[in-house]
Amino acid sequence: MTEATSRRRGRRPNTESADTRDRILTVAREEFSERGYEKTSVRAIAKAAGVDSALVHHYFGTKEQVFEAAIAVALAPAQNAPAAVADGPLDSVGERLTRFIFGVWENPTTRTPLLAIVRSAVNNEAAAAVFRRLVVSQVLGRVAVQLDVPDAELRAELAGAQLVGCAMLRYVIKVEPLASADVEQVIARVAPVVQGHLTGP
Amino acid sequence: MTEATSRRRGRRPNTESADTRDRILTVAREEFSERGYEKTSVRAIAKAAGVDSALVHHYFGTKEQVFEAAIAVALAPAQNAPAAVADGPLDSVGERLTRFIFGVWENPTTRTPLLAIVRSAVNNEAAAAVFRRLVVSQVLGRVAVQLDVPDAELRAELAGAQLVGCAMLRYVIKVEPLASADVEQVIARVAPVVQGHLTGP
Repeated sequence: MTEATSRRRGRRPNTESADTRDRILTVAREEFSERGYEKTSVRAIAKAAGVDSALVHHYFGTKEQVFEAAIAVALAPAQNAPAAVADGPLDSVGERLTRFIFGVWENPTTRTPLLAIVRSAVNNEAAAAVFRRLVVSQVLGRVAVQLDVPDAELRAELAGAQLVGCAMLRYVIKVEPLASADVEQVIARVAPVVQGHLTGP
Repeated sequence: MTEATSRRRGRRPNTESADTRDRILTVAREEFSERGYEKTSVRAIAKAAGVDSALVHHYFGTKEQVFEAAIAVALAPAQNAPAAVADGPLDSVGERLTRFIFGVWENPTTRTPLLAIVRSAVNNEAAAAVFRRLVVSQVLGRVAVQLDVPDAELRAELAGAQLVGCAMLRYVIKVEPLASADVEQVIARVAPVVQGHLTGP
């Protein structure tokens, strides 16, 4: 009997259903991180989680929706950060944004889903769409609306480009000396550049 | 009879052998660009080029070496640019480096192998090593040696991070408005930032 049928018959309490959802998302995150979006199937996620594929579809929908749910849950510890980045004083928004981005990359819990997003987004349009929604809209978009300039979105994206590029070279492709440099030394160099993009002339 | 044996028997002129090498590299570039490094096999390249796998290995060696040769040939039109970027006046090196990078991304002939490098490097360590050799050593390394500062390599890599991030958001993940912005407008914003990383305080 699959978990879906047992759940419909009311034989498992809701907490167990929540546990199953969490287990599916944890497994999905690992599979997407290791293999990338294209090589990961809902079938493989279901198998690794010990459930039926139909249950995964029932809970989350399509593979793209499983991917987005897995990434969003993993980034939940940082979900209030974009608001905090955007809402503080404008003359230090560059440092707040820079510290937020390096913070989520330095933290192993959030680095794994970020690697999954990057690895998948460069190879697959559905995953790129998730990147655009989670990273660009939720982080850069909130910063852009605080800026009182006509090209605010472009400025925010060029600031984001500095940070995305740092993440690529430091955490993904691991270029030295950047990959091993003290993170505070890197932030000290990058934060003023990000600030300049956002509020400079 | 394979091309290798016919070649050894001297039945084909050298120009035809050169044509075969070129054809293999062209096919390899297309395969790596479309599928990424991991999903591309020497066998598939050989089949698409109409030759035996052994001939591909004979000419180029391992899959990593085929990849590097395919990328290097594709980037050949730009091969003198890194020297020209590095050798001009230091107070405009940021603009020269920025124009070089946007130039190779705006050109469809060089964009394809660059996409292949990026798509492959984020998912595979052998491809990441090629990225480090071709991009970091040959481009950023040449700029770094011109700088008379103790942290020249780190500065060059942070400048490179700005450019890599722009390429990711504009050409790979296609974030708007950056993806459709006029390239001269983007260069006007990015070049001073790159210059600042390299020669700023």
